[in-house]
Amino acid sequence: MSKRRGKQTVALASPVAIGSSACVSGSKEGRGPLGSSIDSIYEDSMLGLKSWEQAESAMQKDALNLALSKGNYSESSLRFVLAGDLLGQCIGSAFSARECDVPFIGLYGACSTMAESLALGALLVDGGFADRVAAVTSSHFCGSERLFRLPLEYGGQRSPTAQWTVTGAGAAVLEKADLCSKTGCPRISHVTFGKVVDMGIKEVSYMGAAMAPAAFSTLFAHFEDCKLGPKDYDLIVTGDLGSVGADILRDLFLKKGILLGEAYTDCGVMIFDLHDTDVGSGGSGCGCSAVTLCGHILNGIRKKQWRRVLFCGTGALFSPVSAQQGESIPAICHAVRIIGGD
Amino acid sequence: MSKRRGKQTVALASPVAIGSSACVSGSKEGRGPLGSSIDSIYEDSMLGLKSWEQAESAMQKDALNLALSKGNYSESSLRFVLAGDLLGQCIGSAFSARECDVPFIGLYGACSTMAESLALGALLVDGGFADRVAAVTSSHFCGSERLFRLPLEYGGQRSPTAQWTVTGAGAAVLEKADLCSKTGCPRISHVTFGKVVDMGIKEVSYMGAAMAPAAFSTLFAHFEDCKLGPKDYDLIVTGDLGSVGADILRDLFLKKGILLGEAYTDCGVMIFDLHDTDVGSGGSGCGCSAVTLCGHILNGIRKKQWRRVLFCGTGALFSPVSAQQGESIPAICHAVRIIGGD
Repeated sequence: MSKRRGKQTVALASPVAIGSSACVSGSKEGRGPLGSSIDSIYEDSMLGLKSWEQAESAMQKDALNLALSKGNYSESSLRFVLAGDLLGQCIGSAFSARECDVPFIGLYGACSTMAESLALGALLVDGGFADRVAAVTSSHFCGSERLFRLPLEYGGQRSPTAQWTVTGAGAAVLEKADLCSKTGCPRISHVTFGKVVDMGIKEVSYMGAAMAPAAFSTLFAHFEDCKLGPKDYDLIVTGDLGSVGADILRDLFLKKGILLGEAYTDCGVMIFDLHDTDVGSGGSGCGCSAVTLCGHILNGIRKKQWRRVLFCGTGALFSPVSAQQGESIPAICHAVRIIGGD
Repeated sequence: MSKRRGKQTVALASPVAIGSSACVSGSKEGRGPLGSSIDSIYEDSMLGLKSWEQAESAMQKDALNLALSKGNYSESSLRFVLAGDLLGQCIGSAFSARECDVPFIGLYGACSTMAESLALGALLVDGGFADRVAAVTSSHFCGSERLFRLPLEYGGQRSPTAQWTVTGAGAAVLEKADLCSKTGCPRISHVTFGKVVDMGIKEVSYMGAAMAPAAFSTLFAHFEDCKLGPKDYDLIVTGDLGSVGADILRDLFLKKGILLGEAYTDCGVMIFDLHDTDVGSGGSGCGCSAVTLCGHILNGIRKKQWRRVLFCGTGALFSPVSAQQGESIPAICHAVRIIGGD
């Protein structure tokens, strides 16, 4: 029987295995520090299709198909696909899902979607509602820039606190650990769902600052609920606060007397070389934490580089309309504890 | 132990009680056939706020607060709020949730959101992950028209097959049946998650036709999975196919030799007087099935007007961008079996 821990955390009855994962990306991400962990890198950001949105859907489908084939799973063995993305009405996911003959659960968690889909998927497996599910998400730089910021053709100068939306997608296949024939699979043992936090930040080029308080809220709740601290983790990774937001998060914990320490980093910081002035304070978009998790991080757990990982997806729940209306940016963070397999 | 039935359905281990529900709407819905079942009707579609989007968020919050107070529940007794809406990046839900100190699970299922949130919420309760959760959604005519169709100021003529987005919100509180102190509460016994179905319809004024095949797919799967047929229900209600889509759904079943019969109707048909030429083939929007379910239908189950209800939320998973790019309209339907309390 799963146990609820504190207000926000569920300790699973038995850890859910991440049987397989895969990620795909654009060429900029492929040239970055995590390039070697990315399964497929597209030189053409349109993937030979007619629109960025079609390309994003195709990336999601490719990531899912790669995760299935790497794990030697059939699509029909999935009971649910949980997916979402940043595009209006989540068309990246819907148009990918129409080519997938599996019941579909659509999510919206902005850039927290990888964590949200892993967390919900793990509960559906742990609750006995499914033997195997997939968690999928994506983002595309060009589609996001047009939607949230400026037309690419405008060539505007970017704020140094701004982040660079990752072109990429990630997919993870979750299954009941006792059905998983593989050895050494990473396993989800706890999930912590976040509350929406809005500290009044209105600047869309300062998203890390808008999201850091939500990350603090969820991480703090996770530590409290589980009676754990940063020292109980080999890796604590937010995605995607960028360097600006990550510094704020460290400061918020320091004010509580807690040192996040060396184990803490951020997917937005890991995925790009921050000396590349283009990328501002780092990567963003649902694809940022998806690519980083489904490649680099899960590979590292499989290779026993890390045994105890806290993956914390962060999302800014604003829209172009809310920004134009002068609203501040609500944010959320969901956290998933992933432990190394035997 | 819950049982999986067939490919898409879960039979809950023990039915989950709908302890309370509430709905709110604009004045047009309030003057309609279901007006007497609506808890709060706003004469001012802005709710005295500055934007339609703010008004939509306020409606969601009002519906949730009303559902809590009608059930004599505290907000802090909720373990999760599951919510989504039609607006880009689901800001209707996010801006409502920032005023709610409860972990938030954001969904996107377009107009299927009421069913999706009920279905997932019921699984979270049945799996032992929560004692009590809320399922919430909303839509606003003015915000939706601007987003998906034409500026209101344009005053364009509407197609007779078009639907009228409901201004309204609904909220339901789900809880473990054995914790529910109330008698006669409607209970969720089965949930069926749908696949994304796209039959190639591209006309955004013909949404009922785009969604009817998805409704057929899910209802047919539900009947197969549960070994049930239309005669096993006192009420089968889709939301929101409108009169055009409902007729198509009847025809799709007739082609399989199945008569949906008198028990079948649609939330989009129920919520407005279709002789009002404004509304075309009926209501639409997340708020349409939310208001109809959380008021009229659940009240009818409480009063034992119906004992066995199949509530089937239907959603068109397109966006203004996908429509402008000439894409067809993927659709989905999730179904929830609701039975009368003792």
